[in-house]
Amino acid sequence: MYLGAIEAGGTKFVCAVGDREGNVHERVTFPTTTPDETMRHVIDFFSQYELEAIGIGTFGPVDLNKNSATYGYITSTPKPHWANFNFVGEMKKYFNVPIGFDTDVNAAALGEQLWGAAQGKNSCIYMTVGTGIGVGAIVEGRLLHGLLHPEMGHILVRRHPNDAFAGSCPFHGDCLEGMASGPAIEKRWGKKGIELAERSDVWELEAFYLGQAIAHYILILSPEKVIVGGGVMKQLQLLPNVRRHVIECLNGYVQHEAILQHIDDYIVLPGLGDNAGICGALALAKQALDE
Amino acid sequence: MYLGAIEAGGTKFVCAVGDREGNVHERVTFPTTTPDETMRHVIDFFSQYELEAIGIGTFGPVDLNKNSATYGYITSTPKPHWANFNFVGEMKKYFNVPIGFDTDVNAAALGEQLWGAAQGKNSCIYMTVGTGIGVGAIVEGRLLHGLLHPEMGHILVRRHPNDAFAGSCPFHGDCLEGMASGPAIEKRWGKKGIELAERSDVWELEAFYLGQAIAHYILILSPEKVIVGGGVMKQLQLLPNVRRHVIECLNGYVQHEAILQHIDDYIVLPGLGDNAGICGALALAKQALDE
Repeated sequence: MYLGAIEAGGTKFVCAVGDREGNVHERVTFPTTTPDETMRHVIDFFSQYELEAIGIGTFGPVDLNKNSATYGYITSTPKPHWANFNFVGEMKKYFNVPIGFDTDVNAAALGEQLWGAAQGKNSCIYMTVGTGIGVGAIVEGRLLHGLLHPEMGHILVRRHPNDAFAGSCPFHGDCLEGMASGPAIEKRWGKKGIELAERSDVWELEAFYLGQAIAHYILILSPEKVIVGGGVMKQLQLLPNVRRHVIECLNGYVQHEAILQHIDDYIVLPGLGDNAGICGALALAKQALDE
Repeated sequence: MYLGAIEAGGTKFVCAVGDREGNVHERVTFPTTTPDETMRHVIDFFSQYELEAIGIGTFGPVDLNKNSATYGYITSTPKPHWANFNFVGEMKKYFNVPIGFDTDVNAAALGEQLWGAAQGKNSCIYMTVGTGIGVGAIVEGRLLHGLLHPEMGHILVRRHPNDAFAGSCPFHGDCLEGMASGPAIEKRWGKKGIELAERSDVWELEAFYLGQAIAHYILILSPEKVIVGGGVMKQLQLLPNVRRHVIECLNGYVQHEAILQHIDDYIVLPGLGDNAGICGALALAKQALDE
């Protein structure tokens, strides 16, 4: 018996089968096209296995309220064809097993807590910096939901005094995602981040915005561990600068040795590396089975 | 049998006895001086009653980690005499009953959830805007703690383009508390808020900062109810402007009818009015008894 896992992204889907220890046994990746076509691939893949539960970590926004008529839906996404897609309902047509459903970043936070960098912690956040910026959170031992679910990538940041870039967010212009996502970097500098690896000014500015945002998350959520992943964080020169900006923003106010003395062990890359997303979906399957 | 409640503030202590329904039967108020003197008043008051539990909602920072050697302490406060004060330990010398201990704002959030504006909600925040700015939170049904506890009053806000005030926070200068607390208002305008009631520019600027902060809390915590109290909110012209700035900051991104259509019922004054703090401490006593 396997656990099934779906990491549903705006550009690609990853499906995998694995076990309760977070091991991935088989995986397959395909582009995100229409729900009809994409879900056909999903169902074909999982139909090869005996599953005892499935976990879905997906792009959103999504409805996570189990009392809602649209629980398990992708709701108001601008992505063509996917608005109001009944993701859990579609899976339930084919697989009569418990299904865990959450945001991609909440899934990754849970995976990191179970098997990655936040093991043994009662709270953590998982931030991804890539095509968009998203953050999942575990607080008091539980995945954070609420009215909807957090949208932490869209907080308003203070502009760097030397930065004239207007921002790329269609809703807020120069919010965090508008200033610091992968597309924002490309739009500001005219090249992709990966082509700008040697430009220290690019990564200093990026760290300025990410550090500011993480300081906010620390002041508001007080997580025991901060995990930062996603494509932009592949620039390994970035994280030490992010930590420095966090320290500067907090300016000694949060008096805890984790921040004051051990920040290299407090703000870290994903323990599961590039598997954070798919292992997170596996963790959602495990949680659904255990509930 | 009574529940005992302590609302411990930096300028005054309120002690009360009450019941499990949130009714206050007797209360007494005295100034916060030294721990020796202040606690003598506390102990004298409660010694008159038979108590089954005590709840303490206090100024901080405090140690809320039950596994810590300094659990129940006020820790690094700049307030003279009170740093490293073993609050729970001192109470336990005299009262052999369950003692609930949390921040003043977490206590108020719990009180509002049990008996006030957030009844029936699984999440809420309670923000106080007065001498300082603090926020307590309930997430997934539980009071939010974490590495320490949130310090949401110190998030960095974007400066209003027409505001040249340097800010009053000794740690961060122009953070939220430095720009929008009662003392910040007085320092910026040269008069206390209560003397500026007719000045619409004062409250428009205040709403600009508070609205921005609440938008952050919504994006990061996704609370089902936002409660705003404290002395500054006695300016009743303020709250409608705060709501307007929240809407402007979010700009339609969080698509939920509570925000888009019913914001007057989403961002509200405390249901318990001026009793939010002391009823919150009573709620902590009830919680300690029920655990």
